[in-house]
Amino acid sequence: MSLVVTGTIGIDTVQTPSGEKREGILGGSCAYFSAAAQHHGKVNMVAAVGDDFPDEHRAVLNSLSNLDQTGLEVRKGSKTFRWGGKYHENMDHRDTTFTDLNVLEEGPPKVPESYRDSRYVFLANGHPAVQLGMLEQFPDCTLSVADTMDLWIDIARADLDILIGKVDGLVLNFDEAEQLTGHKNTVSAAKHILEMGPRFVVVKKGEHGCLFVCRDESGIGIGALPAFPAEHVVDPTGAGDSFAGGMMGYLAHAADESKPFDIDTLKVALAHGTVMASFTIETFSLDRLASLTPAELAERFDEFSTMLRVH
Amino acid sequence: MSLVVTGTIGIDTVQTPSGEKREGILGGSCAYFSAAAQHHGKVNMVAAVGDDFPDEHRAVLNSLSNLDQTGLEVRKGSKTFRWGGKYHENMDHRDTTFTDLNVLEEGPPKVPESYRDSRYVFLANGHPAVQLGMLEQFPDCTLSVADTMDLWIDIARADLDILIGKVDGLVLNFDEAEQLTGHKNTVSAAKHILEMGPRFVVVKKGEHGCLFVCRDESGIGIGALPAFPAEHVVDPTGAGDSFAGGMMGYLAHAADESKPFDIDTLKVALAHGTVMASFTIETFSLDRLASLTPAELAERFDEFSTMLRVH
Repeated sequence: MSLVVTGTIGIDTVQTPSGEKREGILGGSCAYFSAAAQHHGKVNMVAAVGDDFPDEHRAVLNSLSNLDQTGLEVRKGSKTFRWGGKYHENMDHRDTTFTDLNVLEEGPPKVPESYRDSRYVFLANGHPAVQLGMLEQFPDCTLSVADTMDLWIDIARADLDILIGKVDGLVLNFDEAEQLTGHKNTVSAAKHILEMGPRFVVVKKGEHGCLFVCRDESGIGIGALPAFPAEHVVDPTGAGDSFAGGMMGYLAHAADESKPFDIDTLKVALAHGTVMASFTIETFSLDRLASLTPAELAERFDEFSTMLRVH
Repeated sequence: MSLVVTGTIGIDTVQTPSGEKREGILGGSCAYFSAAAQHHGKVNMVAAVGDDFPDEHRAVLNSLSNLDQTGLEVRKGSKTFRWGGKYHENMDHRDTTFTDLNVLEEGPPKVPESYRDSRYVFLANGHPAVQLGMLEQFPDCTLSVADTMDLWIDIARADLDILIGKVDGLVLNFDEAEQLTGHKNTVSAAKHILEMGPRFVVVKKGEHGCLFVCRDESGIGIGALPAFPAEHVVDPTGAGDSFAGGMMGYLAHAADESKPFDIDTLKVALAHGTVMASFTIETFSLDRLASLTPAELAERFDEFSTMLRVH
């Protein structure tokens, strides 16, 4: 089924605790999501860059065989979004060293006519009003999922509440789930968000995996998955977006659509997201996601599912 | 196979974030461990209390049908170990409000002659020199596992290193694993400890589950399990000890001994530990562990293993 993602393409500068620093590397939620999701099938991308977007980064996107870039606007006279981040020693926290919104401060990118019948819609982190505007442009959407962040909970809560009331799924970090609901307990926080509208909520916990709640025909179910144990984490940037990409790619292209969406389908999708994120963090930028082969992906998924077999 | 645990029986005072406070309740590593492990089979207990040990607490121990209390010393004129703790809002951290070592400051309890052939030995948290002294009293031991804590890493590192070199397994919290090894990455920390001697290391992460490494015939394996998602946590005290109890109870009484110990056996044991801990935190003290039926335990284990099925 057709899958579309709306979000950012960025030029990142990343510093890791080991002292390594990479400047001007390809990043952004849309880039990480797409590089992950396209391993399961076609992905339509809606994003904007400036005319400073480097050819080498475009070449990486071009190398992603299932990525449709019709919706990638290159704006004359605009500059690409740039972000800098510095990771703390435990890799689970980072400081933003700079943010140049650039093209993100202009109007949102246009959705190509050819994308309008997209059935699976992922709204990567952004102002919830913009996410809502995007969602409205996919009238045939059967499964919409949004990501969000602490900033929007702080400054755009009313719009965010409307968005949460309209999407099928919300993914967010565990501290954001607490911030949004006031619940310290992650299960309580996720269930609280479920009451705000969505059919499922996925709470991302970084190296600790994820927790999810889902309302389906059998009621409200709760689940948790660990992260794939990683010893050599080079750069955690994009882990959350590629997690979402692995999840949505599976749902749109691999899940059995003949049966109603339920917590078991979501769980398998999240396992695919977990495996995808485990590759992302092995290198800077999209390097590992871009080089990843179907055999490597299948092997690690098998390793992960075997690791979780306790019966 | 015969299982023995050495550790503390305590009288606890616990305050939870909800404002609830319970004074003088039954606790201690040996109590939580035994109450959990005896659901899988017989447990021999080595511990000491004073003659102030309340009849009502003894009645709880008496109600645990597979618990052998031959090794529980009641010392005339001594006082039972007492501990007070106050949990932070997120339940994952706590402050110790008081510690009255009492009987723990005297010599360690005697190991009854009838326990000496115990094959599975769990050394609950204590001074590593005392743990070593205990270990030596079980010459037929085939699988020994120790727990430890930040205090001993700080003040008894040399003894702890010797202990780690002699046991088959070590369980400890994730922050202690970092403290012991200097590794922020949990996998690296666990592998570092593996090099110090044991065949396996289990890093406990509270609400985030556990991570483990194991050296077996196929090399060094790594795994992770989430916690059983819990919405209503009444009191986390004893979660780690009952986790260990569930693990050791399974290994001693339910695992297939005809095949060599390997990471898959450890993993299933840890799943049993996880399920056991999920019951412990539902009430204060040993209340839930003492009332737990085989059917309830089997049902939740099935729920947990089903939750982890992603293939």
